[in-house]
Amino acid sequence: MVVKIVYINPVGTDAFDKPMKEFLDQYKSPDTIIEVASLKSGPWHTEYYSYDALVIPDVLRVIREYENKGSDAAIIGCFYDPGLHEAREISDMVITAPAESAMHIASTLGDRFSIIVGRRKWIPLMMQNVVKYGFESKLVSFESVELGVWDFHKDIEETKRRLIRAAKNAVDKGAEVIILGCTVLFGFFKDLEKEVGVPVVDPIIASLKYAEFLVELKKMIGWSWSRIGMYEKPPKDEIEKWKLF
Amino acid sequence: MVVKIVYINPVGTDAFDKPMKEFLDQYKSPDTIIEVASLKSGPWHTEYYSYDALVIPDVLRVIREYENKGSDAAIIGCFYDPGLHEAREISDMVITAPAESAMHIASTLGDRFSIIVGRRKWIPLMMQNVVKYGFESKLVSFESVELGVWDFHKDIEETKRRLIRAAKNAVDKGAEVIILGCTVLFGFFKDLEKEVGVPVVDPIIASLKYAEFLVELKKMIGWSWSRIGMYEKPPKDEIEKWKLF
Amino acid sequence: MVVKIVYINPVGTDAFDKPMKEFLDQYKSPDTIIEVASLKSGPWHTEYYSYDALVIPDVLRVIREYENKGSDAAIIGCFYDPGLHEAREISDMVITAPAESAMHIASTLGDRFSIIVGRRKWIPLMMQNVVKYGFESKLVSFESVELGVWDFHKDIEETKRRLIRAAKNAVDKGAEVIILGCTVLFGFFKDLEKEVGVPVVDPIIASLKYAEFLVELKKMIGWSWSRIGMYEKPPKDEIEKWKLF
Amino acid sequence: MVVKIVYINPVGTDAFDKPMKEFLDQYKSPDTIIEVASLKSGPWHTEYYSYDALVIPDVLRVIREYENKGSDAAIIGCFYDPGLHEAREISDMVITAPAESAMHIASTLGDRFSIIVGRRKWIPLMMQNVVKYGFESKLVSFESVELGVWDFHKDIEETKRRLIRAAKNAVDKGAEVIILGCTVLFGFFKDLEKEVGVPVVDPIIASLKYAEFLVELKKMIGWSWSRIGMYEKPPKDEIEKWKLF
Amino acid sequence: MVVKIVYINPVGTDAFDKPMKEFLDQYKSPDTIIEVASLKSGPWHTEYYSYDALVIPDVLRVIREYENKGSDAAIIGCFYDPGLHEAREISDMVITAPAESAMHIASTLGDRFSIIVGRRKWIPLMMQNVVKYGFESKLVSFESVELGVWDFHKDIEETKRRLIRAAKNAVDKGAEVIILGCTVLFGFFKDLEKEVGVPVVDPIIASLKYAEFLVELKKMIGWSWSRIGMYEKPPKDEIEKWKLF
Amino acid sequence: MVVKIVYINPVGTDAFDKPMKEFLDQYKSPDTIIEVASLKSGPWHTEYYSYDALVIPDVLRVIREYENKGSDAAIIGCFYDPGLHEAREISDMVITAPAESAMHIASTLGDRFSIIVGRRKWIPLMMQNVVKYGFESKLVSFESVELGVWDFHKDIEETKRRLIRAAKNAVDKGAEVIILGCTVLFGFFKDLEKEVGVPVVDPIIASLKYAEFLVELKKMIGWSWSRIGMYEKPPKDEIEKWKLF
Repeated sequence: MVVKIVYINPVGTDAFDKPMKEFLDQYKSPDTIIEVASLKSGPWHTEYYSYDALVIPDVLRVIREYENKGSDAAIIGCFYDPGLHEAREISDMVITAPAESAMHIASTLGDRFSIIVGRRKWIPLMMQNVVKYGFESKLVSFESVELGVWDFHKDIEETKRRLIRAAKNAVDKGAEVIILGCTVLFGFFKDLEKEVGVPVVDPIIASLKYAEFLVELKKMIGWSWSRIGMYEKPPKDEIEKWKLF
Repeated sequence: MVVKIVYINPVGTDAFDKPMKEFLDQYKSPDTIIEVASLKSGPWHTEYYSYDALVIPDVLRVIREYENKGSDAAIIGCFYDPGLHEAREISDMVITAPAESAMHIASTLGDRFSIIVGRRKWIPLMMQNVVKYGFESKLVSFESVELGVWDFHKDIEETKRRLIRAAKNAVDKGAEVIILGCTVLFGFFKDLEKEVGVPVVDPIIASLKYAEFLVELKKMIGWSWSRIGMYEKPPKDEIEKWKLF
Repeated sequence: MVVKIVYINPVGTDAFDKPMKEFLDQYKSPDTIIEVASLKSGPWHTEYYSYDALVIPDVLRVIREYENKGSDAAIIGCFYDPGLHEAREISDMVITAPAESAMHIASTLGDRFSIIVGRRKWIPLMMQNVVKYGFESKLVSFESVELGVWDFHKDIEETKRRLIRAAKNAVDKGAEVIILGCTVLFGFFKDLEKEVGVPVVDPIIASLKYAEFLVELKKMIGWSWSRIGMYEKPPKDEIEKWKLF
Repeated sequence: MVVKIVYINPVGTDAFDKPMKEFLDQYKSPDTIIEVASLKSGPWHTEYYSYDALVIPDVLRVIREYENKGSDAAIIGCFYDPGLHEAREISDMVITAPAESAMHIASTLGDRFSIIVGRRKWIPLMMQNVVKYGFESKLVSFESVELGVWDFHKDIEETKRRLIRAAKNAVDKGAEVIILGCTVLFGFFKDLEKEVGVPVVDPIIASLKYAEFLVELKKMIGWSWSRIGMYEKPPKDEIEKWKLF
Repeated sequence: MVVKIVYINPVGTDAFDKPMKEFLDQYKSPDTIIEVASLKSGPWHTEYYSYDALVIPDVLRVIREYENKGSDAAIIGCFYDPGLHEAREISDMVITAPAESAMHIASTLGDRFSIIVGRRKWIPLMMQNVVKYGFESKLVSFESVELGVWDFHKDIEETKRRLIRAAKNAVDKGAEVIILGCTVLFGFFKDLEKEVGVPVVDPIIASLKYAEFLVELKKMIGWSWSRIGMYEKPPKDEIEKWKLF
Repeated sequence: MVVKIVYINPVGTDAFDKPMKEFLDQYKSPDTIIEVASLKSGPWHTEYYSYDALVIPDVLRVIREYENKGSDAAIIGCFYDPGLHEAREISDMVITAPAESAMHIASTLGDRFSIIVGRRKWIPLMMQNVVKYGFESKLVSFESVELGVWDFHKDIEETKRRLIRAAKNAVDKGAEVIILGCTVLFGFFKDLEKEVGVPVVDPIIASLKYAEFLVELKKMIGWSWSRIGMYEKPPKDEIEKWKLF
């Protein structure tokens, strides 16, 4: 039973598409086929909340496009989870995103977790998501390494040093699991686990595995978005009349 | 000291522009000049979360436009407060929105409040805002009258009857103040106050008066958005390079 | 890649072993092999908290036995999740239980959920688990049908009627997803979904699928219990010296 | 439209009356007329909770006196907000106090705030107010400079140094806005803003501007205290019969 | 070891002094000697928050008087617990009050409790105390019988009927223990327990037994108010200089 | 009126029985007779959650045995409070345990408390109890001295040094009262109080005095476990039929 999943980099560059596909292919289930997409235009990162808001309409359009092409799931590849609830509202595909997926996993593997972020700027919006998803009592702390998205891969050793220091701080404060709070931190988790000795959740693997899990729930049991409130779908005629997507 | 405020209807119709301007003009301070704007295209209401997400980029563009024209404040006229934080991030104007403004006022006038909404659908996103703004312990309940945005003015008497019933339910549950949870419910508050005997906060008046209040704080004392985290501004060169607005 | 999972009925009767195995076999992944075990002695249900405490040592012994036999995962088949954290402490297998699994799934499928229980008696302990797992803000209500574990299958139609009424009450209060809060309610979810129109999470399917998901995370990525705090393992020499299991 | 506001120093000394009037006059709206009053006897500061309780009856009497003289609003000038709810219960004037006013403003200007206090002693009662007003999730920390009310102006430079250090600590912990948690810290906010780079809310300006804001809401829209619960007024005949004020 | 306890009716009438003494004498420990005091003037009830504030200074004076006379403990006999923290600040005696005492007991006897009050008016202030004492998660509901303090004994049978109805409502909502939320409801608990079948905590017995308990902790073990923050005592010289009590 | 209380060391060694009895005898009421019991087999400490689960059935059996012998109360002598709710479910005796008792006392003596534990490992389970009993808002922190149960008495001076350091850290963070979070720390409280200057609650004294208090409530007033939910008793015939204890 083939499962087709599109991983969307919600930025106006395809720079991450190839390395992320190669990385994800190592962790996918045998039946999964992964495509990676990005946006035709728009900001090259979404650290600012306004950038994040700007890309959501395009993310929704990409999702509708892949749904029409027969995909089973879409992953919105940014730790702000931009458009996650909106996408589920308009799509019958499985939709996942890194923050939600990582928190479900992390809260199962130990008592409480910390999230390592790039910059202080990111924390308020991510904290809103922690609360929105219901994981407030599971969060120990955010730890910032004060590096922007495009800094992470400039000096890999320096990034690692900062990640290790941040993770150790978190563990000292009570964290039993670490979440990497940026998709561009993909691949750092293995080294960090060795250094710190606790599970480190890679956000893009988390979003992939959670997508596969939800696809299985949908195909085998029929469990999908509740259509009674938050995910009530908009009427088709409105979408057409107002040319919304 | 003239204060110029733009009230934005974040929908692709100007149907509400004139009546809302007339209504707001009754409650503005003498020095305030109100303009009302709407979007050139887009959904005619934003009940769906995806519609809400679709209009935010245009709302941000309108705000930048009015900032360049010398406005002092912008009001985002939808009770989901779409783009409120994003707008503050990119603009030095005062930005308000109905839900945040109404909750500050309501929580001052009595112990706790309820919010009357059109449809059940709206509640999860509005609840996220209640929590985001920090008013969770002040909320008694959401009460739904099960009418869509465009139904409110179809049968005014029926709408009133439902609002009164909802408000009385809320008061029975402990609410001491009522908030009308949709901008299109503007103007109903007076009758409701007479019937129910508690303050009823009209959301668009609330957003206007809160905007005037914040403009005064900014002009007289210099208090404006903290630029250290949530409202840290994006760099101009990125905005230009990626043609973001 | 074969996955061996033992589903443990933590009661002193094997009455449910066969029907539960047959039921679970319909929903397992192709590679999963399910065994069902129960206890040699002990109470025939665990509605009382003291009964629940009495069975935990035997549950832990069964888990150690199956770990020695090469199982990949164990499911503790009672909605109180008896011994879940204790089992993870002493075992390197994947361990799941219905309440934790069902809440992760339900909180993903919609905004908030309600749990239908047999008797009022059950609620305080289950509420402790809701809080312990961090899902307090996702819970709308517990709804009791006032039937004991052994009553559910006496008059199937009466049970269904009560479940439907309870589920509709929950939906009226704001629930978008329903969780069946007893493993012996296995199999009722399909009819309920048809009647109520929202996803209904069957607790034993949930625990099975969540176990398969965690086994995949462990085998493919290496993510397993954090051994730094809550799940720090006891020293082997103590276990032997004091003959603990 | 003239607005008459009385600022009450709830202490048995008029030492602060003149400097506070001069300070407030710089920030008032053109139409506002400010009077400053203090008590005829009583403690010279209210750092102790029992002192605070002792002054409340006199504060209520002063408020009734100014209401009879035609004032529009009264400000209770102590960051414990002594008698705020009691005063609203018995008076139809607008009543504000520094803590409540400052928190409404601070929570609008940024994500979360910290409150700088004089002594550790003050924190539990102020924390009760933070919770009572519903701002718990907006509070990062209290920071104590370990100076009593009468120490603040003894060595201005030392006070500034401690305030700056406290504010920087708060910002490091996540605060985006600083509130000065004592009315006698009036006037320090400008220097602090320059040093720390975030908005610093002066508590007496906050209480003045919030009073003007509420007077405008009352006069133009008719919004005032809900009389259905917390602010239900006592019957006049009881007040006379028992000679209460 | 004789224990001298003064029970203070914080009202300007001694109407309750005799019956309350007779009632308390039935439940005191053999070594306890109870005196009952009331105020020389002031309101005859404290239903209004301003009345409550008015009596606190006199309550503090009575407490200092009895401390000087060698009492071991004082009970502040109103379910608003007026002046409880202030009294502990200035006194080394044991101080208790009905709400705090009743909640400690009720939260031990069952999972969660409800509080029956006279009028809706009372709830916001009592809710503040529930939160202040840390019992928010133990509270199911307030139930109002809509009778004032002086109505309770007018028609005893009607009062009982309303109390029973309120208690049954509370039990239906999940309460396992009932607290009577007014000292003037003393003596009703026995009948209510018979009718409703759950423990009903009489607030004045609760305050008496908790006082005896704390006196024992103080005399035998030396545990008394922590003097480091909330209960840091004011300096004697200030009290004398400003003639505070 | 003689009160018979059994203090149970829930471990498979009687090493603590004699010193604990001698210690408790110093703090008991004159009418109290204390017996100390331990288990015939089982782990010598219960630091691991699985050990804790293993001893609960035996604790319940000891409690039934002493109830049959006419005891008035049983104390479960471990700060995890193992089996506390289960014991109350099956027994009409008063049952207390150190954590619950200590938190009631500590939250009365000051604003908030910290709990000093032996090892980080203990914190998640103890935190669950803090939340379960409703004292989350009263907790400042857990402080770990990183010593196991059997280390505390190896080097008394080192233990004291670590306890003092931990207590001072807690006070710096805002704690006004300290709780010793292990029964084997009995007797250290006096020295600690001298060094740190705040009340230090000894957990086994706390559990003894709270037991005496509850026995008095039961004997004089009739208040005991609510039998309607959490403490609803299991039917006798089931217990016999399944030979449960």
